Amino acid sequence: MNAKAKGTAGERELVKFFNEADWGCIRIAGSGSSKYPSPDILAGNAIRRLAIECKVTKENKKYFPPEEVEQLRTFSKKFGAEAWVGIKFSGEPWHFLMLEDLENTGSNFGASVELAKRRGLTKEELIGADNAKNNGDQT
Amino acid sequence: MNAKAKGTAGERELVKFFNEADWGCIRIAGSGSSKYPSPDILAGNAIRRLAIECKVTKENKKYFPPEEVEQLRTFSKKFGAEAWVGIKFSGEPWHFLMLEDLENTGSNFGASVELAKRRGLTKEELIGADNAKNNGDQT
Repeated sequence: MNAKAKGTAGERELVKFFNEADWGCIRIAGSGSSKYPSPDILAGNAIRRLAIECKVTKENKKYFPPEEVEQLRTFSKKFGAEAWVGIKFSGEPWHFLMLEDLENTGSNFGASVELAKRRGLTKEELIGADNAKNNGDQT
Repeated sequence: MNAKAKGTAGERELVKFFNEADWGCIRIAGSGSSKYPSPDILAGNAIRRLAIECKVTKENKKYFPPEEVEQLRTFSKKFGAEAWVGIKFSGEPWHFLMLEDLENTGSNFGASVELAKRRGLTKEELIGADNAKNNGDQT
């Protein structure tokens, strides 16, 4: 698989995960090429909405251009969603970071494997799966 | 343009409308072919989230198969969004209907031009554009 196919496969894995956890989750058409800001995926349940920019990489560090971070922030604010980046390093599970947790290099925002493991959430932590039985949709 | 291209152009017109009204709005990749339920577009602001199934048609009446209506209802409940269908009849503006406003023929759900004009909202009414200046994001 080339990098784009791996990215798409990674996004589909997340869509499956969220749906199986009983969230609504969709991939966005033309994200990255649209005239209007948009993330890669949107997930939501009765309480929370997550806008996620997804990266699958073979490198040990992943950089996000400032305009990509800014677009994610803009979209999330307009749509009413939490802004997250999800990074899948080789041999690692997905790690999810808030924009504030990315390292600001001056010209880019970045996250190393080490930073992602230290500050990031797993996908189960992201949706609070541990608490689902107690705090879930039981209203 | 063929029917699919007209559908895509119609969705893009709505994405533009919502973004210009300062909502977040995206088209969904693979809607209709995805394994998991998903609408055609999602729009949101600080307060509301709308899941919209969009139809552009040359006919005077548009039918929705029951499974399409059910998928929209399922997704909207899981994601935490209002469920709407948007129909663009030839020579008419978009009309937006709640699922309860569709006519249940027994085998399908449908809306005629006449029903859409009588019960539907225009896109400005859908987002409450008339009230935006008074009730908008001023918190």
